[in-house]
Amino acid sequence: MPLIEIIALLAVAQFLYFGYLVGMQRQKSGLKAPTMTGDDGFERAFRVQMNTLELMIALIPVLLLAGKYWPAWLIAPIGIVYLVGRTLYQQAYMNAPTKRGTGFMLSLGPIAALLVLALLGAVWHLF
Amino acid sequence: MPLIEIIALLAVAQFLYFGYLVGMQRQKSGLKAPTMTGDDGFERAFRVQMNTLELMIALIPVLLLAGKYWPAWLIAPIGIVYLVGRTLYQQAYMNAPTKRGTGFMLSLGPIAALLVLALLGAVWHLF
Amino acid sequence: MPLIEIIALLAVAQFLYFGYLVGMQRQKSGLKAPTMTGDDGFERAFRVQMNTLELMIALIPVLLLAGKYWPAWLIAPIGIVYLVGRTLYQQAYMNAPTKRGTGFMLSLGPIAALLVLALLGAVWHLF
Repeated sequence: MPLIEIIALLAVAQFLYFGYLVGMQRQKSGLKAPTMTGDDGFERAFRVQMNTLELMIALIPVLLLAGKYWPAWLIAPIGIVYLVGRTLYQQAYMNAPTKRGTGFMLSLGPIAALLVLALLGAVWHLF
Repeated sequence: MPLIEIIALLAVAQFLYFGYLVGMQRQKSGLKAPTMTGDDGFERAFRVQMNTLELMIALIPVLLLAGKYWPAWLIAPIGIVYLVGRTLYQQAYMNAPTKRGTGFMLSLGPIAALLVLALLGAVWHLF
Repeated sequence: MPLIEIIALLAVAQFLYFGYLVGMQRQKSGLKAPTMTGDDGFERAFRVQMNTLELMIALIPVLLLAGKYWPAWLIAPIGIVYLVGRTLYQQAYMNAPTKRGTGFMLSLGPIAALLVLALLGAVWHLF
């Protein structure tokens, strides 16, 4: 489990970094809180953070529960694909939002795989 | 615990499904990212997803911690009420936002109950 | 761990309370769902809730994982600083958004500290 926990913690660190980028874009744009619209760079950075937040609430439980029932050599690589996919998504969204599909699929796909694995593991241990 | 974990994973699956509905509404509306306003169907689907996200960050820890201290026959039904309540909330919000109260209470209520049970369990085990 | 779990549950309760304040501001403002803009008090309360949501997805895993590897007398006080920092942030944002920096740092700082401690603990247990 420590390896799986490290991947979960790296996903948290990545998410906090995306939050830092939102703060940078707010400063650059000169938008004052609570305003959330009016600057494209800020809106993109904010959407990256929000979309990552939406995935994180799924990732953390499915990653830790899949890691409880399956060996780390199977689960850790799936978690690493998520981390790389999110980075691609962030890069694409900032530069060309229409090209964010690949990065999105490379971060949603691992979550779907971990969800299925965690469900199989838990159902198996019901009996 | 496997039964409680399955309910937590079903809540994750439901949340991902709500996210899928947001994507469908974005396509239907023709809104381009990062725009988040301008189409009522999209805004409603997005509010369903965001409100569910707000509850999920509470649900996952209180469900798993309540399940650690209390028997599954008590905790699992409370989790199932949450899942049904969220479905009612989603249906109501898409069709008539002013009628979303019942579904909202049927998903917030179980979280409040699980929070109290988890707190009681943890306080009991402090000593 | 029960003490650390209680702090995690108090953070959930605090977050639900911030959500309650958003509902109060919506009623007061007369804004109808799904509208999210047009009233400063509502927008501020909503931003407090969203910013807290962004931190909660980081706090819950880092708090529980740090609590797994380090003694409660070290981790619990850091969690309490987070709870106090969030209260200061909420107070400041509602009254004078530009003064929210101190409360923000007092809630982000503990998360950063817990993240580092959790990573050190997990890496240490890898070998």
